[in-house]
Amino acid sequence: MTTNQLISEIKKKKSFLCIGLDVDLNKIPKHLLKEEDPIFAFNKAIIDATHQLAVAYKPNTAFYEAYGIKGWKALEKTIKYLNENYPEIFTIADAKRGDIGNTSTMYAKAFFEDLGFDSVTVAPYMGKDSIEPFLSFKEKHTILLALTSNKGAFDFQTQKIDNKEVYKTVLETSKSWENSENLMYVVGATKAEYFKEIREIVPNSFLLVPGVGAQGGNLEDVCKYGLTEDIGLLINSSRGIIYASNKSDFALAAANEAEKLQQQMKLEINSLS
Amino acid sequence: MTTNQLISEIKKKKSFLCIGLDVDLNKIPKHLLKEEDPIFAFNKAIIDATHQLAVAYKPNTAFYEAYGIKGWKALEKTIKYLNENYPEIFTIADAKRGDIGNTSTMYAKAFFEDLGFDSVTVAPYMGKDSIEPFLSFKEKHTILLALTSNKGAFDFQTQKIDNKEVYKTVLETSKSWENSENLMYVVGATKAEYFKEIREIVPNSFLLVPGVGAQGGNLEDVCKYGLTEDIGLLINSSRGIIYASNKSDFALAAANEAEKLQQQMKLEINSLS
Repeated sequence: MTTNQLISEIKKKKSFLCIGLDVDLNKIPKHLLKEEDPIFAFNKAIIDATHQLAVAYKPNTAFYEAYGIKGWKALEKTIKYLNENYPEIFTIADAKRGDIGNTSTMYAKAFFEDLGFDSVTVAPYMGKDSIEPFLSFKEKHTILLALTSNKGAFDFQTQKIDNKEVYKTVLETSKSWENSENLMYVVGATKAEYFKEIREIVPNSFLLVPGVGAQGGNLEDVCKYGLTEDIGLLINSSRGIIYASNKSDFALAAANEAEKLQQQMKLEINSLS
Repeated sequence: MTTNQLISEIKKKKSFLCIGLDVDLNKIPKHLLKEEDPIFAFNKAIIDATHQLAVAYKPNTAFYEAYGIKGWKALEKTIKYLNENYPEIFTIADAKRGDIGNTSTMYAKAFFEDLGFDSVTVAPYMGKDSIEPFLSFKEKHTILLALTSNKGAFDFQTQKIDNKEVYKTVLETSKSWENSENLMYVVGATKAEYFKEIREIVPNSFLLVPGVGAQGGNLEDVCKYGLTEDIGLLINSSRGIIYASNKSDFALAAANEAEKLQQQMKLEINSLS
């Protein structure tokens, strides 16, 4: 999917919501455990109930790998279901990969070609030659960790290199990489006050923003500095939406929570025109 | 496996060789492609031929994920085969994972419990709370990226925070984390001159050293500064060993290459006593 297609979808749906599909078998409704593939059954119900309110879905690969082959199958079925039934949806493999060149190429093939995701999250620690193999895929997007939403972000990301925080150095440096137009960045919502300076470095890039909801981030604060003319934001909510209920009404409850966020987003988008 | 068990195995075999199982179907002998599971057939033959010369095996997960379910099954079979037939072998999932706390717990379960690896490689960018979930597993080891063997290492890892390189800051900081005795570190062989200063920060920790062979690193240089009384090194070679031949003699050729390295290691170990 091209960035323009994503932007047009956002404007059509008046939503820049991304729903995180972090499926934990201990948290889903008990009656689904009788299904042949409970993880996929859960995802399918959530997707069918929320696809008009969201523009993106983001399975975190950890939750699938934790169930071995069964989990990997559920991930394959989920992305296939999305691509076949809702091709207008932007898909994100939240995998936080990154390795030396030839190995990153294998990861890129795994997520872009074998599974068919539109994008994948990657970690910057190993530098340029660990990321460029991802960037060389056309109409695919590479979402680089910049400033994450957890406490550990203060261990290294906000430390200063030559008077400039590590995460800003990552943003600046990555702009010079080949095919950097295919880059997006992860910036946590729990650090809304940082968005102003981030927008000075990457004024137009899409930012994937986790941390709204369960982690305490606030949508309005993020939009205040993060929103661009072309929106430029994908706000993710996982637990706050998918675990809104663990009863038989779980999909409806998820849709209600998604709609609350979408309604706020609609106001933000309308305020731009 | 405990660190002491690993050390005693190293001393017994006079080897601190780790063999990287980075299987690419385009590079393995053609006759194996007829097998039901060519990746596992290749790994099994390599392991059977080299297990007396090596103390560790390290599948890089990228090479398995690139083949989807088929690849993940081959990974499961490989680790199961190692654990059942060669329980004295130290196993490393080269996965370079790392995510916010609850998600890192899922990755730790995937690699330590579901698959049964002794250790996993992780990236430090997200800080303490992304790594401690791995460290809490007893008799399991978490191998933190410090200084990698690729060019991109100079993009961020060797930049200075308060006059100290990022990778040294990572080493220093990680020592204060809970259960840090379960930490090992990745330090590339292509940067042998750095080992002296690294040993000042982590005098006793095990270092997993990629980059010998195909990437140009030199064993003698690494040992000069990296070797400790208890060895403290695992030197990895992947392509140089497993692709020594792509004919029917591939396993024997791999054993020959492994033995060359093991003989050098024997000299290094003997020089300690």
